[in-house]
Amino acid sequence: MTDTFSLSLTALPDIPLIQPGDNLTTIILEAVARAGMTLQDGDVLVITSKIVSKAEGCLVDLRTITPGAEAQALAAEIDKDPQLVELILRESVRISRKALHVLVVEHRLGFVSANAGIDHSNVVGNDENLVLLLPIDPDASARDIRTEILNRTGTAIGIIISDSHGRPFRLGTTGVAIGVAGMPALLDLRGQPDLFGRTLRISMLGYGDMIASSAQLLTGEGGEGLPVVLVRGLQFPKMDGHAHDLQRPAESDLYR
Amino acid sequence: MTDTFSLSLTALPDIPLIQPGDNLTTIILEAVARAGMTLQDGDVLVITSKIVSKAEGCLVDLRTITPGAEAQALAAEIDKDPQLVELILRESVRISRKALHVLVVEHRLGFVSANAGIDHSNVVGNDENLVLLLPIDPDASARDIRTEILNRTGTAIGIIISDSHGRPFRLGTTGVAIGVAGMPALLDLRGQPDLFGRTLRISMLGYGDMIASSAQLLTGEGGEGLPVVLVRGLQFPKMDGHAHDLQRPAESDLYR
Repeated sequence: MTDTFSLSLTALPDIPLIQPGDNLTTIILEAVARAGMTLQDGDVLVITSKIVSKAEGCLVDLRTITPGAEAQALAAEIDKDPQLVELILRESVRISRKALHVLVVEHRLGFVSANAGIDHSNVVGNDENLVLLLPIDPDASARDIRTEILNRTGTAIGIIISDSHGRPFRLGTTGVAIGVAGMPALLDLRGQPDLFGRTLRISMLGYGDMIASSAQLLTGEGGEGLPVVLVRGLQFPKMDGHAHDLQRPAESDLYR
Repeated sequence: MTDTFSLSLTALPDIPLIQPGDNLTTIILEAVARAGMTLQDGDVLVITSKIVSKAEGCLVDLRTITPGAEAQALAAEIDKDPQLVELILRESVRISRKALHVLVVEHRLGFVSANAGIDHSNVVGNDENLVLLLPIDPDASARDIRTEILNRTGTAIGIIISDSHGRPFRLGTTGVAIGVAGMPALLDLRGQPDLFGRTLRISMLGYGDMIASSAQLLTGEGGEGLPVVLVRGLQFPKMDGHAHDLQRPAESDLYR
């Protein structure tokens, strides 16, 4: 058996609650050492967006938000908090679907998600007024962490910043990659032959999303107790993917 | 570090091309031994639907299919093979979306997928006329394999029969669980407190799908070269999930 046939995932232990301004790279490298591990070229670190947002200070106090007319009308229509609806609209480019208590939007980052990915649980203690926005530019956050790890350890790894999304047709959230660096996000196998030499027909893998999902088997939904997972054993081509590679263009989407 | 914090995935080596009538349990147990492993309670085997279909003889020769009037009209409209369209319609309860070369249906098993999951690659050699339908009842197939493994080894494991689906909004296929036995399919965390004691809000995990996706990082799209992955280290409650637990009821789906 060779490494090609196996993968290991390790949730890094004892990562402290993240505060605004924390250096995530330092915290992650310390946790890798605590796990008794050393980073290797080709490793992938999956980091929940929650701790990236916290380190980057993306906290908002809902009491500071003044809902505009659109947010007020929409909040009344779907029975949601007007301040939260205002924030969701600010983070979005358009509304995808709305229903009682439900607001699904196209996020400014391009993906479609409920509540613009704004996180209301586990933010700071029990303060119901504090919510967490997604990082400003998760691909850039991923790139920065990757570069700092490369500079400090000489190791070239892949980074995925993950979030947890619902989806049409199926119940339960799964992991998605909203920031990617140093690795493919979408793996395009088109043109590669199958076992019998025929060309594969359906052959784009949602690679970053599948890796984010695999990590979420350890982190669970919360994403804060065990917010970083080291994935070892992936075999991927050297390329610089971006989270938007995983976004289906609206004009080719039959479900917009 | 405890086992709780790590997962290992092993693609079982040297599984032969499956023929109709093959006993998959025997083939899998031999491959586990070849990998130098022994099954343990709580292990999960992820098996691609392709080899389950092959073992169950779900092959169809398109030349034997006579397209009806609906299939002929639809095939002309979207420019697809009329025999294939006839088979897709027979495997489906309704059409979800259609476009040039694209037919997305609600499968008789309840999920929404392109071409009713009918597989045209890697079927038997280079014969373009042979296609593979999904197993008749993948939950039952999973249950049968689980029971036979329990009887032969005394080990209680979880089984997922996996497929690869496209999805709205995002490019690239990801893994989905279309058959489940001996484990939860959907993991419902509602009511569990988060780190600060507040109750989690979004808290249903697409557990079976995330496991299927993690296995697909090793099997790739084809699903035949490395069709069985042993996942070790998952922590899940004892329960008997079913694939349909993961299916969002049409009446609560904003995107049907």
